[in-house]
Amino acid sequence: MTTELANVTVHPQANVYFDGKCVSHTVTLPDGSRKSVGVILPATLTFNTGTPEVMETVAGECQIKLSGHSEWTRYGTGQSFDVPGNSSFEIKVEGAPYHYICHFG
Amino acid sequence: MTTELANVTVHPQANVYFDGKCVSHTVTLPDGSRKSVGVILPATLTFNTGTPEVMETVAGECQIKLSGHSEWTRYGTGQSFDVPGNSSFEIKVEGAPYHYICHFG
Repeated sequence: MTTELANVTVHPQANVYFDGKCVSHTVTLPDGSRKSVGVILPATLTFNTGTPEVMETVAGECQIKLSGHSEWTRYGTGQSFDVPGNSSFEIKVEGAPYHYICHFG
Repeated sequence: MTTELANVTVHPQANVYFDGKCVSHTVTLPDGSRKSVGVILPATLTFNTGTPEVMETVAGECQIKLSGHSEWTRYGTGQSFDVPGNSSFEIKVEGAPYHYICHFG
């Protein structure tokens, strides 16, 4: 599991989605690639993707239903899930905040 | 105004305060000093300080009442305010999220 992101540049203005149910900060790596570190508060939300994403669970847990799927799958700390590009997924967070790193591309 | 924090290490687990009304991520600079980048959603909140802090407004605006003061002062994008150590301040955010960098020490 990624415990820290070193030698990165942080954009200090947060991304605020769904009235603050999801807040993330964008970081840029030395190779120019981009990730975001974020938190989702208890809620059920639908996110759309542009590029493919790998969502890495840093703390907490969530349930995920990918577009076109009918079942929810649970992911806990240290676990990741892949989301295709130009797609969407539902995420359900209950109880405690869900902390993640979103790896793009 | 600080538009980016370069060559830093980001701790990917967010700090979530007041049921998510304030969310921040901690960054460590090459010299070992620590800052946080955060956002406060519309609310009136009271924060306590340990070390002295400089709060730099990255986007949005807020009103601040320092401990022992009776008046609110407004700070907008690019403006900063100092908070003494071992003290507290009230912050009022209305309308849009308030984005900040907290410089410690």
